[in-house]
Amino acid sequence: MTLTIYGDHRSGNCLKVKWAAERLGLAYDWIEVDARDGETRSPPFLKLNPAGQVPTVVLPDGRALAQSNAILLHLAAGTDLIPADPYWRSKMFEWLFWEQHSHEPYIAAARRQMMRGASKKDLDAELVRRGDAALARMEAWLSAYPYLVDGRFSLADISLIAYTRLAHEGGFDLTKYPAVCVWIDRVEAELGLTVPA
Amino acid sequence: MTLTIYGDHRSGNCLKVKWAAERLGLAYDWIEVDARDGETRSPPFLKLNPAGQVPTVVLPDGRALAQSNAILLHLAAGTDLIPADPYWRSKMFEWLFWEQHSHEPYIAAARRQMMRGASKKDLDAELVRRGDAALARMEAWLSAYPYLVDGRFSLADISLIAYTRLAHEGGFDLTKYPAVCVWIDRVEAELGLTVPA
Repeated sequence: MTLTIYGDHRSGNCLKVKWAAERLGLAYDWIEVDARDGETRSPPFLKLNPAGQVPTVVLPDGRALAQSNAILLHLAAGTDLIPADPYWRSKMFEWLFWEQHSHEPYIAAARRQMMRGASKKDLDAELVRRGDAALARMEAWLSAYPYLVDGRFSLADISLIAYTRLAHEGGFDLTKYPAVCVWIDRVEAELGLTVPA
Repeated sequence: MTLTIYGDHRSGNCLKVKWAAERLGLAYDWIEVDARDGETRSPPFLKLNPAGQVPTVVLPDGRALAQSNAILLHLAAGTDLIPADPYWRSKMFEWLFWEQHSHEPYIAAARRQMMRGASKKDLDAELVRRGDAALARMEAWLSAYPYLVDGRFSLADISLIAYTRLAHEGGFDLTKYPAVCVWIDRVEAELGLTVPA
Protein backbone atom coordinates (compact mmCIF):
# COMPACT_ATOMS: atom_id res chain seq x y z
CA MET A 1 0.00 0.00 0.00
CA THR A 2 1.00 3.58 -0.52
CA LEU A 3 0.34 6.50 1.76
CA THR A 4 -3.26 7.76 1.56
CA ILE A 5 -4.00 11.37 2.45
CA TYR A 6 -7.60 12.29 3.28
CA GLY A 7 -7.73 16.01 2.77
CA ASP A 8 -9.69 19.06 1.73
CA HIS A 9 -7.75 20.95 -0.94
CA ARG A 10 -8.86 24.31 0.50
CA SER A 11 -7.34 23.52 3.91
CA GLY A 12 -3.83 24.72 4.68
CA ASN A 13 -3.50 21.95 7.26
CA CYS A 14 -4.13 19.40 4.51
CA LEU A 15 -1.89 21.07 1.95
CA LYS A 16 1.04 20.98 4.41
CA VAL A 17 0.89 17.21 4.34
CA LYS A 18 0.73 17.11 0.54
CA TRP A 19 3.71 19.47 0.21
CA ALA A 20 5.78 17.49 2.73
CA ALA A 21 5.03 14.22 0.94
CA GLU A 22 6.03 15.76 -2.39
CA ARG A 23 9.17 17.36 -0.98
CA LEU A 24 10.14 13.96 0.48
CA GLY A 25 9.42 12.16 -2.79
CA LEU A 26 6.74 9.96 -1.22
CA ALA A 27 4.09 8.43 -3.44
CA TYR A 28 0.57 9.07 -2.13
CA ASP A 29 -3.09 8.83 -3.00
CA TRP A 30 -5.17 11.92 -2.23
CA ILE A 31 -8.78 11.35 -1.26
CA GLU A 32 -10.71 14.59 -1.31
CA VAL A 33 -12.94 15.05 1.74
CA ASP A 34 -15.23 18.06 2.05
CA ALA A 35 -14.66 19.25 5.60
CA ARG A 36 -17.61 21.63 5.36
CA ASP A 37 -20.41 19.23 4.43
CA GLY A 38 -20.10 16.73 7.27
CA GLU A 39 -17.98 14.12 5.47
CA THR A 40 -15.47 14.17 8.33
CA ARG A 41 -18.33 13.30 10.71
CA SER A 42 -19.46 10.17 8.86
CA PRO A 43 -19.10 6.88 10.74
CA PRO A 44 -16.47 5.45 8.34
CA PHE A 45 -14.38 8.61 8.63
CA LEU A 46 -14.69 8.72 12.43
CA LYS A 47 -13.27 5.19 12.49
CA LEU A 48 -10.12 6.59 10.89
CA ASN A 49 -10.02 9.69 13.08
CA PRO A 50 -12.35 9.95 16.06
CA ALA A 51 -11.66 13.69 16.17
CA GLY A 52 -13.43 14.01 12.80
CA GLN A 53 -10.80 16.25 11.23
CA VAL A 54 -8.73 16.38 8.08
CA PRO A 55 -5.95 15.81 7.30
CA THR A 56 -5.92 12.17 8.27
CA VAL A 57 -3.55 9.75 6.63
CA VAL A 58 -3.47 5.98 6.32
CA LEU A 59 0.13 4.88 6.39
CA PRO A 60 1.42 2.16 4.06
CA ASP A 61 1.01 -0.38 6.91
CA GLY A 62 -2.71 0.43 7.09
CA ARG A 63 -2.64 2.40 10.35
CA ALA A 64 -4.18 5.87 10.58
CA LEU A 65 -2.62 9.07 11.88
CA ALA A 66 -4.10 12.55 12.31
CA GLN A 67 -3.08 16.11 13.22
CA SER A 68 -1.19 17.84 10.43
CA ASN A 69 1.99 18.51 12.37
CA ALA A 70 2.12 14.98 13.81
CA ILE A 71 1.80 13.67 10.25
CA LEU A 72 4.63 15.95 9.05
CA LEU A 73 6.87 14.66 11.85
CA HIS A 74 6.05 11.06 11.00
CA LEU A 75 6.67 11.42 7.27
CA ALA A 76 9.90 13.41 7.72
CA ALA A 77 11.45 11.28 10.49
CA GLY A 78 15.17 10.91 9.86
CA THR A 79 15.32 13.50 7.05
CA ASP A 80 16.87 16.95 6.88
CA LEU A 81 13.46 18.55 7.35
CA ILE A 82 13.96 17.89 11.08
CA PRO A 83 17.09 19.38 12.68
CA ALA A 84 19.49 16.76 14.02
CA ASP A 85 20.62 19.08 16.81
CA PRO A 86 18.44 18.50 19.91
CA TYR A 87 18.04 22.18 20.79
CA TRP A 88 17.05 23.24 17.29
CA ARG A 89 14.73 20.25 16.99
CA SER A 90 13.01 21.47 20.15
CA LYS A 91 12.83 25.01 18.76
CA MET A 92 11.14 23.51 15.70
CA PHE A 93 8.62 21.83 18.00
CA GLU A 94 8.09 25.21 19.66
CA TRP A 95 7.02 26.74 16.33
CA LEU A 96 4.85 23.71 15.48
CA PHE A 97 2.90 23.88 18.75
CA TRP A 98 2.70 27.66 18.54
CA GLU A 99 1.26 27.32 15.04
CA GLN A 100 -1.60 25.11 16.22
CA HIS A 101 -2.26 27.16 19.35
CA SER A 102 -1.59 30.79 18.46
CA HIS A 103 -1.59 31.13 14.66
CA GLU A 104 -3.90 28.71 12.86
CA PRO A 105 -6.92 29.24 15.18
CA TYR A 106 -7.02 32.93 14.24
CA ILE A 107 -5.65 33.18 10.72
CA ALA A 108 -7.39 30.08 9.39
CA ALA A 109 -10.61 30.90 11.23
CA ALA A 110 -10.75 34.41 9.76
CA ARG A 111 -10.19 32.97 6.29
CA ARG A 112 -12.85 30.32 6.82
CA GLN A 113 -15.38 32.95 7.86
CA MET A 114 -14.60 35.10 4.83
CA MET A 115 -14.80 32.08 2.51
CA ARG A 116 -18.30 31.53 3.91
CA GLY A 117 -19.30 35.05 2.98
CA ALA A 118 -18.32 37.22 5.94
CA SER A 119 -16.70 40.54 5.11
CA LYS A 120 -13.64 41.84 6.89
CA LYS A 121 -15.70 44.11 9.14
CA ASP A 122 -17.83 41.15 10.30
CA LEU A 123 -14.80 39.46 11.86
CA ASP A 124 -14.47 39.38 15.63
CA ALA A 125 -11.99 42.08 16.68
CA GLU A 126 -10.18 39.76 19.09
CA LEU A 127 -9.69 37.16 16.34
CA VAL A 128 -8.16 39.81 14.08
CA ARG A 129 -5.98 41.17 16.89
CA ARG A 130 -4.59 37.72 17.67
CA GLY A 131 -3.99 36.92 14.02
CA ASP A 132 -2.08 40.16 13.58
CA ALA A 133 -0.09 39.40 16.76
CA ALA A 134 0.93 36.05 15.25
CA LEU A 135 2.03 37.70 12.00
CA ALA A 136 3.93 40.36 13.97
CA ARG A 137 5.79 37.68 15.89
CA MET A 138 6.80 36.00 12.63
CA GLU A 139 7.82 39.37 11.19
CA ALA A 140 10.12 40.04 14.16
CA TRP A 141 11.86 36.69 13.75
CA LEU A 142 12.02 36.72 9.96
CA SER A 143 13.45 40.24 9.92
CA ALA A 144 16.59 38.67 11.37
CA TYR A 145 16.61 35.10 9.99
CA PRO A 146 15.81 33.54 6.61
CA TYR A 147 13.94 30.55 8.03
CA LEU A 148 12.18 29.79 11.31
CA VAL A 149 14.73 27.35 12.73
CA ASP A 150 18.53 27.51 12.72
CA GLY A 151 18.77 29.36 9.41
CA ARG A 152 17.59 26.30 7.49
CA PHE A 153 14.43 25.10 5.81
CA SER A 154 12.49 22.72 8.10
CA LEU A 155 9.02 21.41 8.90
CA ALA A 156 8.38 24.64 10.81
CA ASP A 157 8.45 26.55 7.52
CA ILE A 158 6.14 24.03 5.83
CA SER A 159 3.71 24.18 8.73
CA LEU A 160 3.67 27.95 9.12
CA ILE A 161 3.49 28.85 5.47
CA ALA A 162 0.25 26.95 4.99
CA TYR A 163 -2.05 29.63 6.41
CA THR A 164 0.39 32.55 6.41
CA ARG A 165 0.47 32.66 2.58
CA LEU A 166 -3.35 32.72 2.57
CA ALA A 167 -3.73 35.25 5.40
CA HIS A 168 -4.95 37.94 2.98
CA GLU A 169 -7.97 35.70 2.27
CA GLY A 170 -8.84 36.21 5.95
CA GLY A 171 -8.58 39.97 5.65
CA PHE A 172 -5.03 40.35 6.98
CA ASP A 173 -2.83 42.89 5.25
CA LEU A 174 0.40 41.02 4.50
CA THR A 175 2.04 44.18 3.13
CA LYS A 176 2.42 45.24 6.80
CA TYR A 177 4.80 42.28 7.22
CA PRO A 178 7.51 42.64 4.56
CA ALA A 179 9.91 40.07 6.03
CA VAL A 180 7.08 37.57 6.16
CA CYS A 181 6.40 38.26 2.46
CA VAL A 182 10.04 37.65 1.54
CA TRP A 183 9.96 34.42 3.56
CA ILE A 184 6.73 33.32 1.82
CA ASP A 185 8.45 33.73 -1.56
CA ARG A 186 11.50 31.82 -0.30
CA VAL A 187 9.48 28.90 1.09
CA GLU A 188 7.17 28.76 -1.93
CA ALA A 189 10.30 28.45 -4.07
CA GLU A 190 11.60 25.65 -1.82
CA LEU A 191 8.30 23.81 -2.22
CA GLY A 192 7.88 24.58 -5.91
CA LEU A 193 4.64 26.48 -5.29
CA THR A 194 4.79 28.98 -8.10
CA VAL A 195 1.09 29.77 -8.03
CA PRO A 196 -1.22 29.87 -5.02
CA ALA A 197 -2.53 26.36 -4.34
CA MET B 1 23.33 25.90 35.78
CA THR B 2 20.18 24.00 36.53
CA LEU B 3 16.94 24.11 34.59
CA THR B 4 14.89 27.25 35.28
CA ILE B 5 11.13 27.14 34.79
CA TYR B 6 9.30 30.46 34.43
CA GLY B 7 5.71 29.61 35.26
CA ASP B 8 2.41 30.64 36.79
CA HIS B 9 1.35 28.06 39.39
CA ARG B 10 -2.31 28.41 38.37
CA SER B 11 -1.57 27.45 34.75
CA GLY B 12 -1.95 23.83 33.71
CA ASN B 13 0.52 24.43 30.88
CA CYS B 14 3.14 25.44 33.46
CA LEU B 15 2.34 22.63 35.90
CA LYS B 16 2.86 20.06 33.14
CA VAL B 17 6.47 21.13 32.89
CA LYS B 18 6.93 20.98 36.67
CA TRP B 19 5.43 17.48 36.87
CA ALA B 20 7.54 16.20 33.99
CA ALA B 21 10.72 17.59 35.56
CA GLU B 22 9.85 15.96 38.88
CA ARG B 23 8.92 12.65 37.27
CA LEU B 24 12.25 12.69 35.43
CA GLY B 25 14.17 13.55 38.59
CA LEU B 26 15.47 16.83 37.13
CA ALA B 27 16.55 19.58 39.49
CA TYR B 28 14.96 22.91 38.63
CA ASP B 29 14.38 26.43 39.89
CA TRP B 30 10.84 27.72 39.61
CA ILE B 31 10.39 31.44 38.98
CA GLU B 32 6.80 32.49 39.53
CA VAL B 33 5.49 34.78 36.80
CA ASP B 34 2.02 36.26 36.98
CA ALA B 35 0.61 35.71 33.51
CA ARG B 36 -2.36 37.96 34.27
CA ASP B 37 -0.62 41.16 35.30
CA GLY B 38 1.55 41.72 32.23
CA GLU B 39 4.79 40.18 33.57
CA THR B 40 5.02 38.01 30.44
CA ARG B 41 4.90 41.18 28.33
CA SER B 42 7.85 42.91 30.02
CA PRO B 43 10.90 43.53 27.83
CA PRO B 44 13.18 41.15 29.81
CA PHE B 45 10.60 38.36 29.56
CA LEU B 46 10.01 38.98 25.85
CA LYS B 47 13.74 38.47 25.32
CA LEU B 48 13.34 34.94 26.69
CA ASN B 49 10.13 34.25 24.79
CA PRO B 50 8.99 36.71 22.11
CA ALA B 51 5.53 35.10 22.24
CA GLY B 52 5.18 36.45 25.81
CA GLN B 53 3.82 33.23 27.25
CA VAL B 54 4.54 30.94 30.16
CA PRO B 55 5.84 28.33 30.58
CA THR B 56 9.24 29.29 29.30
CA VAL B 57 12.35 27.47 30.46
CA VAL B 58 16.01 28.31 30.43
CA LEU B 59 17.95 25.11 29.88
CA PRO B 60 21.11 24.34 31.82
CA ASP B 61 23.16 25.60 28.83
CA GLY B 62 21.46 29.02 29.11
CA ARG B 63 19.24 28.75 26.04
CA ALA B 64 15.50 29.39 26.28
CA LEU B 65 12.65 27.20 25.11
CA ALA B 66 8.89 27.79 25.14
CA GLN B 67 5.60 26.00 24.44
CA SER B 68 4.70 23.51 27.15
CA ASN B 69 4.59 20.43 24.93
CA ALA B 70 7.87 21.32 23.20
CA ILE B 71 9.47 21.64 26.63
CA LEU B 72 8.08 18.25 27.70
CA LEU B 73 9.54 16.65 24.57
CA HIS B 74 12.91 18.26 25.20
CA LEU B 75 13.13 17.24 28.85
CA ALA B 76 11.93 13.69 28.22
CA ALA B 77 14.06 12.95 25.13
CA GLY B 78 15.37 9.41 25.31
CA THR B 79 13.22 8.39 28.30
CA ASP B 80 10.28 6.00 28.60
CA LEU B 81 7.87 8.94 28.63
CA ILE B 82 8.23 8.93 24.83
CA PRO B 83 7.35 5.67 23.03
CA ALA B 84 10.32 4.13 21.24
CA ASP B 85 8.04 2.69 18.54
CA PRO B 86 7.74 5.22 15.67
CA TYR B 87 4.00 4.75 15.15
CA TRP B 88 3.11 5.14 18.82
CA ARG B 89 5.47 8.09 19.11
CA SER B 90 3.55 9.71 16.27
CA LYS B 91 0.24 8.90 17.96
CA MET B 92 1.62 10.63 21.06
CA PHE B 93 2.38 13.68 18.90
CA GLU B 94 -1.19 13.47 17.60
CA TRP B 95 -2.56 13.85 21.16
CA LEU B 96 -0.06 16.64 21.99
CA PHE B 97 -1.05 18.75 18.97
CA TRP B 98 -4.73 17.97 19.52
CA GLU B 99 -4.37 19.15 23.11
CA GLN B 100 -3.04 22.55 22.06
CA HIS B 101 -5.53 22.95 19.22
CA SER B 102 -8.77 21.33 20.33
CA HIS B 103 -8.70 20.91 24.12
CA GLU B 104 -6.70 23.60 25.95
CA PRO B 105 -8.19 26.59 24.04
CA TYR B 106 -11.68 25.68 25.28
CA ILE B 107 -11.22 23.99 28.64
CA ALA B 108 -8.49 26.32 29.88
CA ALA B 109 -10.25 29.39 28.48
CA ALA B 110 -13.52 28.53 30.24
CA ARG B 111 -11.62 28.05 33.51
CA ARG B 112 -9.75 31.32 33.03
CA GLN B 113 -13.02 33.19 32.49
CA MET B 114 -14.57 31.66 35.59
CA MET B 115 -11.46 32.40 37.66
CA ARG B 116 -11.92 36.02 36.60
CA GLY B 117 -15.44 36.02 37.93
CA ALA B 118 -17.64 34.79 35.09
CA SER B 119 -20.36 32.34 36.02
CA LYS B 120 -21.07 29.20 34.02
CA LYS B 121 -23.98 30.79 32.21
CA ASP B 122 -21.79 33.69 31.05
CA LEU B 123 -19.58 31.34 29.03
CA ASP B 124 -19.82 31.36 25.26
CA ALA B 125 -21.96 28.39 24.19
CA GLU B 126 -19.54 27.43 21.40
CA LEU B 127 -16.63 27.38 23.85
CA VAL B 128 -18.56 25.03 26.14
CA ARG B 129 -19.65 22.84 23.22
CA ARG B 130 -16.08 22.43 22.01
CA GLY B 131 -14.77 21.73 25.51
CA ASP B 132 -17.39 19.04 26.00
CA ALA B 133 -16.53 17.59 22.57
CA ALA B 134 -12.89 17.32 23.67
CA LEU B 135 -13.84 15.57 26.90
CA ALA B 136 -16.18 13.23 24.98
CA ARG B 137 -13.36 12.27 22.64
CA MET B 138 -11.15 11.44 25.62
CA GLU B 139 -13.99 9.49 27.22
CA ALA B 140 -14.41 7.35 24.09
CA TRP B 141 -10.71 6.49 24.02
CA LEU B 142 -10.28 5.99 27.76
CA SER B 143 -13.33 3.73 27.94
CA ALA B 144 -11.22 1.21 26.03
CA TYR B 145 -7.63 1.99 27.08
CA PRO B 146 -5.95 2.85 30.39
CA TYR B 147 -3.66 5.53 28.95
CA LEU B 148 -3.71 7.69 25.82
CA VAL B 149 -0.90 5.96 23.91
CA ASP B 150 -0.14 2.27 23.52
CA GLY B 151 -1.51 1.27 26.94
CA ARG B 152 1.37 3.02 28.72
CA PHE B 153 1.95 6.22 30.61
CA SER B 154 3.54 8.88 28.36
CA LEU B 155 3.88 12.63 27.84
CA ALA B 156 0.39 12.59 26.29
CA ASP B 157 -1.07 11.77 29.71
CA ILE B 158 0.99 14.49 31.42
CA SER B 159 -0.06 17.04 28.82
CA LEU B 160 -3.75 16.17 28.76
CA ILE B 161 -4.27 15.80 32.48
CA ALA B 162 -3.14 19.37 33.14
CA TYR B 163 -6.43 21.04 32.23
CA THR B 164 -8.67 17.96 32.21
CA ARG B 165 -8.35 17.54 36.00
CA LEU B 166 -9.32 21.20 36.42
CA ALA B 167 -12.17 21.16 33.88
CA HIS B 168 -14.80 21.48 36.64
CA GLU B 169 -13.28 24.88 37.48
CA GLY B 170 -14.38 25.91 33.97
CA GLY B 171 -17.92 24.69 34.55
CA PHE B 172 -17.56 21.28 32.86
CA ASP B 173 -19.28 18.37 34.57
CA LEU B 174 -16.64 15.66 34.79
CA THR B 175 -19.15 13.17 36.22
CA LYS B 176 -20.47 12.84 32.65
CA TYR B 177 -17.08 11.34 31.73
CA PRO B 178 -16.50 8.41 34.10
CA ALA B 179 -13.61 6.86 32.17
CA VAL B 180 -11.87 10.23 32.14
CA CYS B 181 -12.31 10.41 35.94
CA VAL B 182 -10.76 6.96 36.39
CA TRP B 183 -7.86 8.01 34.14
CA ILE B 184 -7.39 11.25 36.12
CA ASP B 185 -7.02 9.19 39.32
CA ARG B 186 -4.58 6.85 37.56
CA VAL B 187 -2.39 9.65 36.17
CA GLU B 188 -2.48 11.64 39.41
CA ALA B 189 -1.20 8.52 41.17
CA GLU B 190 1.57 8.15 38.56
CA LEU B 191 2.59 11.76 39.14
CA GLY B 192 2.15 11.66 42.91
CA LEU B 193 -0.52 14.38 42.81
CA THR B 194 -2.60 13.41 45.79
CA VAL B 195 -4.24 16.80 46.18
CA PRO B 196 -5.22 19.25 43.44
CA ALA B 197 -2.23 21.42 42.62
